[in-house]
Amino acid sequence: MPAPARPDVLIIGGGLIGLATAWRTARRGLSVTLCDPEPGANASFAAAGMLTPVTELHYGEELLLGLNLDSARRYPDFVAELREASGGADPGYRESGTLAVAFDADDRAVLADLHEFQRSLGLRAEWLSGGEARRLEPMLAPSVRGGLLVEGDHQVDNRMLLAALFAALEREPRAELVRARAAELTVAGGRAVGVVLEDGTAIAAGQVVLAAGCWSGQLRGIPPEALPPVRPVKGQILRLAVPEVYKPFLTHTVRGVVRSNHAYLVPRAHGELVLGATTEEQDYDTSVTAGGVYELLRDARALVPGITELPLLETRAALRPGSPDNAPLIGPTALPGLLAATGHYRHGVLLTPATAEAMAEILATGSVPDLAEPFSPLRFGK
Amino acid sequence: MPAPARPDVLIIGGGLIGLATAWRTARRGLSVTLCDPEPGANASFAAAGMLTPVTELHYGEELLLGLNLDSARRYPDFVAELREASGGADPGYRESGTLAVAFDADDRAVLADLHEFQRSLGLRAEWLSGGEARRLEPMLAPSVRGGLLVEGDHQVDNRMLLAALFAALEREPRAELVRARAAELTVAGGRAVGVVLEDGTAIAAGQVVLAAGCWSGQLRGIPPEALPPVRPVKGQILRLAVPEVYKPFLTHTVRGVVRSNHAYLVPRAHGELVLGATTEEQDYDTSVTAGGVYELLRDARALVPGITELPLLETRAALRPGSPDNAPLIGPTALPGLLAATGHYRHGVLLTPATAEAMAEILATGSVPDLAEPFSPLRFGK
Repeated sequence: MPAPARPDVLIIGGGLIGLATAWRTARRGLSVTLCDPEPGANASFAAAGMLTPVTELHYGEELLLGLNLDSARRYPDFVAELREASGGADPGYRESGTLAVAFDADDRAVLADLHEFQRSLGLRAEWLSGGEARRLEPMLAPSVRGGLLVEGDHQVDNRMLLAALFAALEREPRAELVRARAAELTVAGGRAVGVVLEDGTAIAAGQVVLAAGCWSGQLRGIPPEALPPVRPVKGQILRLAVPEVYKPFLTHTVRGVVRSNHAYLVPRAHGELVLGATTEEQDYDTSVTAGGVYELLRDARALVPGITELPLLETRAALRPGSPDNAPLIGPTALPGLLAATGHYRHGVLLTPATAEAMAEILATGSVPDLAEPFSPLRFGK
Repeated sequence: MPAPARPDVLIIGGGLIGLATAWRTARRGLSVTLCDPEPGANASFAAAGMLTPVTELHYGEELLLGLNLDSARRYPDFVAELREASGGADPGYRESGTLAVAFDADDRAVLADLHEFQRSLGLRAEWLSGGEARRLEPMLAPSVRGGLLVEGDHQVDNRMLLAALFAALEREPRAELVRARAAELTVAGGRAVGVVLEDGTAIAAGQVVLAAGCWSGQLRGIPPEALPPVRPVKGQILRLAVPEVYKPFLTHTVRGVVRSNHAYLVPRAHGELVLGATTEEQDYDTSVTAGGVYELLRDARALVPGITELPLLETRAALRPGSPDNAPLIGPTALPGLLAATGHYRHGVLLTPATAEAMAEILATGSVPDLAEPFSPLRFGK
């Protein structure tokens, strides 16, 4: 449908967070316009799609764990509804389980600590010996000393998820996608009232959502007190092919710490193997570097030596939106009418359903769900 | 110009060897048709373009050394004439010198032996201490123990050379390029008399040249006694970018033996850095693999650790035409009217001028130059 003269909600940024927020918000009956010159092109496209709140648990992030677990639990219904709304697109959700492995006594101790912490929080994880881990995944390196199996940590093919969201929005009469860059926020009477696009077109809106990942603080016209403190954190990531003769190569997501680098291998149902990822503070640089590719291959080889024979399909770098406390910004900013849904750092794919649901609730009712409350953008207020 | 009904010479294969042979032969006054569905697309495009007969000297290959040195000496005139014939295209020839380095006492001994052998043959090479090597190339690893500087071993940008050859052929009235695959050799009266293209078109010709690299033995209709014994030898190769801030990164080609792998880095004038290459017997497979890329980056990093920061521009695999004795096949085969110019293995770019000149001489006069005589395809006769 043509853009309404003044949509209820204008979303800036068409990554997974923006697209899913647009879809869920339109489902609540609001009219939504999303603008992005190249939707689905950045971190959402590059990501590995791990849904691993239990395996990626960190001390001191219990609040984030609550949101992560909530979002993981929402995934089955979210993708089922999305499949229907999109006219049958497969969102690529796969309940494949995750195996975190240890190489030496130090790794083993770290993993045992993590296991203890997981159990103290009532999370399910199973300790495996090296032999048990290799029986589960025969391609694991002989040097693997033990592992932690988390059957409940799954994955989604983020590229299939993007495609399903595009299809759902296409069929949603209250949503419109504008392939253009928002250049400036329009503020009137102390309130966000729309944006001006790069070509000069003005779009007025009831509420404006910043969902532009690490670029969310770059829009002109945002008053300083409402600027989301996000920064780019570069990640380089590889995709390998698993030829028929090697299938099934891996059936679980495999994670490990190699020389203090976190490495992972995520096997897709259709045979791709995703290898990630570097974590680099390099401003907005997105070059794939010799060193980045070297380290990813070196660490993945240490976990699964058999990758040597696999064709290298793709090398890529993209920018995660980092925040000062590594947790997302969800909800109203200090400027009335301006909301944020950004700063998801390493958990953007995982947090897509919970964020979209929380944002739709806030946009439709003005009230912030309890689970989202700790992630108010106002926590960074001056 | 339109193809003559019956060109004097028909060349199968549009790599550097085929293109240069076509150009030099047309210059001798013969009409030439070259057919290739995708000229300049395989090993000639992938190659690093090292012109390093002295650095790549091997025991037992003194005959090949003679041809290699002859071809290296021809390069300056060859590219000057090509530049003129092409209407000004720069063939990318660079007299940048080559530095072979050693890491440990074993490498050092190997390099010292090579130096001795070079001197015994009257070749010019200068021994450098580790410190001297690093003064010449400050990006070299601190662990480099010594090096052999060969000022006379140069390089050519094989992609610029291809472009110049295309331009020269375009302007050559006696030459024609047909973008189609030769399917079958036509033999009549015990003599090669032309080919049939994949679409059924027949081209009759006075003489036929097999210059299809590792595919030279695949053409249907070649009698067994005339089949060139070439095989594909896969090479994976990388291209990095050198950003302005790092220039000049390297000024010489740097070669080294790392864990018995031969690694090299070739710096282009325009800032590209070529890293090569694997040597794999993998039949006709041309996939870029995780292991290939890993090893190239690992070995190049050992020589020049600073590559870590450089953007990775390209990963590629192509097939060298290997022969039973690692030397090329140049000249008449056992079938009258059928000649070969293939099997150049690792030296195709280097041997382009000498091969093209020898082939033009043979095609125009029927007599084989002395230097090419040892490389007769008939040496593999049954």
